[in-house]
Amino acid sequence: MNKFIAHSNDEIIRDLQNNVPTGKVNTNTDLLQKVENDQYGVKLADGLPLALIEAKTVKDIQGVLKTARKYHIPVVPRTTATSTVSGSDAIANSFILSTAKMNHIKEINRADQVAVVEPGVINQELDDEARKFGLFYAPDPGSKKISSVGGNASTNAGGMSTVRYGATKDSVLGLKVVLADGREIKLGTRTLKQAFGYNLTQLFVGSEGTLGIITEVTVRLFPIPLGDSITGLAFFKDMKALSTAVTEIRGSGAYPSMLEALDADTVKALDKYEGTHYSENAGAMLILRLDSSNDQMLNTTKEILAKRGGQNLHLTTDPKEAAEITKLRQDMLPAVFANGQHVMEDMAVPLSKLAEMMDYIKKVADQLHLEIYTAGHAGDGNVHPTIIWSADTDGIPDEVQKALQLMFRKALKLGGTISGEHAVGMLKNQWNNEELGDDVDMIQHQIKALFDPMNILNPKRKID
Amino acid sequence: MNKFIAHSNDEIIRDLQNNVPTGKVNTNTDLLQKVENDQYGVKLADGLPLALIEAKTVKDIQGVLKTARKYHIPVVPRTTATSTVSGSDAIANSFILSTAKMNHIKEINRADQVAVVEPGVINQELDDEARKFGLFYAPDPGSKKISSVGGNASTNAGGMSTVRYGATKDSVLGLKVVLADGREIKLGTRTLKQAFGYNLTQLFVGSEGTLGIITEVTVRLFPIPLGDSITGLAFFKDMKALSTAVTEIRGSGAYPSMLEALDADTVKALDKYEGTHYSENAGAMLILRLDSSNDQMLNTTKEILAKRGGQNLHLTTDPKEAAEITKLRQDMLPAVFANGQHVMEDMAVPLSKLAEMMDYIKKVADQLHLEIYTAGHAGDGNVHPTIIWSADTDGIPDEVQKALQLMFRKALKLGGTISGEHAVGMLKNQWNNEELGDDVDMIQHQIKALFDPMNILNPKRKID
Repeated sequence: MNKFIAHSNDEIIRDLQNNVPTGKVNTNTDLLQKVENDQYGVKLADGLPLALIEAKTVKDIQGVLKTARKYHIPVVPRTTATSTVSGSDAIANSFILSTAKMNHIKEINRADQVAVVEPGVINQELDDEARKFGLFYAPDPGSKKISSVGGNASTNAGGMSTVRYGATKDSVLGLKVVLADGREIKLGTRTLKQAFGYNLTQLFVGSEGTLGIITEVTVRLFPIPLGDSITGLAFFKDMKALSTAVTEIRGSGAYPSMLEALDADTVKALDKYEGTHYSENAGAMLILRLDSSNDQMLNTTKEILAKRGGQNLHLTTDPKEAAEITKLRQDMLPAVFANGQHVMEDMAVPLSKLAEMMDYIKKVADQLHLEIYTAGHAGDGNVHPTIIWSADTDGIPDEVQKALQLMFRKALKLGGTISGEHAVGMLKNQWNNEELGDDVDMIQHQIKALFDPMNILNPKRKID
Repeated sequence: MNKFIAHSNDEIIRDLQNNVPTGKVNTNTDLLQKVENDQYGVKLADGLPLALIEAKTVKDIQGVLKTARKYHIPVVPRTTATSTVSGSDAIANSFILSTAKMNHIKEINRADQVAVVEPGVINQELDDEARKFGLFYAPDPGSKKISSVGGNASTNAGGMSTVRYGATKDSVLGLKVVLADGREIKLGTRTLKQAFGYNLTQLFVGSEGTLGIITEVTVRLFPIPLGDSITGLAFFKDMKALSTAVTEIRGSGAYPSMLEALDADTVKALDKYEGTHYSENAGAMLILRLDSSNDQMLNTTKEILAKRGGQNLHLTTDPKEAAEITKLRQDMLPAVFANGQHVMEDMAVPLSKLAEMMDYIKKVADQLHLEIYTAGHAGDGNVHPTIIWSADTDGIPDEVQKALQLMFRKALKLGGTISGEHAVGMLKNQWNNEELGDDVDMIQHQIKALFDPMNILNPKRKID
């Protein structure tokens, strides 16, 4: 016997279509299957969504929320769905609300050093446009070419140059947000300073679509630094030795803008993927960059590298060669992912604990006989161990789960976080109490209830 | 006939003394009169507090809040009470809760680039200690030598080098806070990145003691930049011309760490105070600094200054001379304040609007026949017009009120904020709707109610 159904799906979809004036309401099963899970996370959707709504205007978003409130339908927001923590996987019978087509750069202002964009604007596109004005958009996650400014603001994404220019939170000055009740509010400013209201802008940055739907982002753009940009490679015995050098460079006053670490196995995978021969050099590779450097910065960096066992240092100011080196870091993911199924992890520890964390990850891999490729934004103490397992295994193997648990606990024990830049999603929400404590976990729920009392915005993740 | 009193003051003070194990409970009238108003704001206290509690421990703070909840007593937190917006002025029959004596630097960690401090630690002391480790504490408000890290976190104070190193919010990584209900919670991390929970750390930064009492602050410390630090002076026809140059330097990729503007009247007041002769030069003075500069940064800065009418440029790498130049900016306040009663204002506008704002302030002064001294962190678009009036006038003159209103409205119209770095206090809380809008104003009240349902924490200011 069927469960009693108060409202048929047809009725709900009709209401939705009536409420969405310009966007597209898709209910085609093939398409819904395609968007059921996001692209890079572990697939945690528990069934097909009812509809995929491609919003074009704020009114579309308000319409989706109106229907959602009426029928108590969960709304899963997304732009390009590049979450690695199953942040935009569907809930059965939910609405997937895409703002990917709200992708206009509304303004780039050179004097103010700000851009105002719709949420679906791709990172790379904003950066490309900004550079025409002598500015750049700093956040550069691995997904820079395919992820959006709005999505990055929702997750507080980081990247390679976070070490100098900060994470997405540090670039977001203001937001427009549609709340669960349909009101659009404006937060923050386009000034470089504000000490007025409560910092609600930063409450929404990193809230992963659980508090509201971002409709506009005002970001700061940095001037392209004057002087040489020097990009380079150095090789170390192992990740522990590399980490020691990185911590020292970071504290030296050389202000590097990139300090990326790749372990021996990752370099081997890269060689295989790229046809290069870096793995002949040593056990761990450091990619570094200094922007607007002066002699003292460069010389100090070289001295630390030499003193801490850095070998085969190669530096260049040639933009083409620099791009090739940076591409190594960007190609790391496909090179590693080619080896099977994966979960890419993301912990950050205090810089003094980076070497210990690197060493621990290696021990976990050895003990559990797992294939773990470790890379990371070493300059931020941010580590990405990627665990690979056989392509034909169903679900996440027990020893992978065990490894994750061990690594997470270790990061927390070292005073770190289990999410440096990938957010929480459906993959890590069960860790809230352990990272934040029971009191802060409860406060998060109270704030959620304040903004979204019906729990229709991206439920079952982040804090839920 | 007296109002019926449920509890005598004696009973309340006895309860307070029982609940405060180690701190000092002061009820001496002379002392209470001394702390009734803070030192630099317009005096807005509406009567004597019941007691000044000098807390030494978290337990003391919890005890004060326990008595405050029991008898519904407003609690006004303070450290060194250097607010310029009457942020820590008393409420009649309130408790003034001082954490000034909780002033220990708990830890400075060179490798992690963090310090953990109690709220009462003086900015300058933390900076001095950090420099022994090759690091520095960036926030440098005019009150650096007398204001505290906890107070600065409460107000999101800025300063001269905010232009490069950010405001206090950008240096705060984590907080411990005692909530109105007495629970102490821990927010944030000591890692340089975190994308885990809602950003409650930044909700508390700048919340002006209305959401909780800060008991510990974890701040990032920056490495002292390598290479020359170049400090200098240049003179311009007027503040408008200066502003145009500043906006261009700021966008050039020279990454200055100081761009301070002083108008002609301020320079004259300084000359009188210091016995110097800068006012002979021109109509506005720019103080600038470049840290870790390279040739291109320096040359570009020089070129822009020359092109935009900068005269008598003088640059130095001599630390002693640099300190003398910087001291000019620091002495600006006493030099101006010496001329009468004052209100020092604090607006920030988008950089492209800085010249227009400067020009407008001059017009307001002319039209209302007011003595206005304008200085500011020009590189942040942050303007501090100080209005001076006769020492023997009672209250704030009407034309001063009128000038404030005109300048605030203009800043808002230009897309700015009426508080760049001095917060809201009791001086600007009536502007919430105008700057933030009714919806956001209401959300602020909802958040306040969530954390402090009895409204005992610093009521009548910020949002109230």
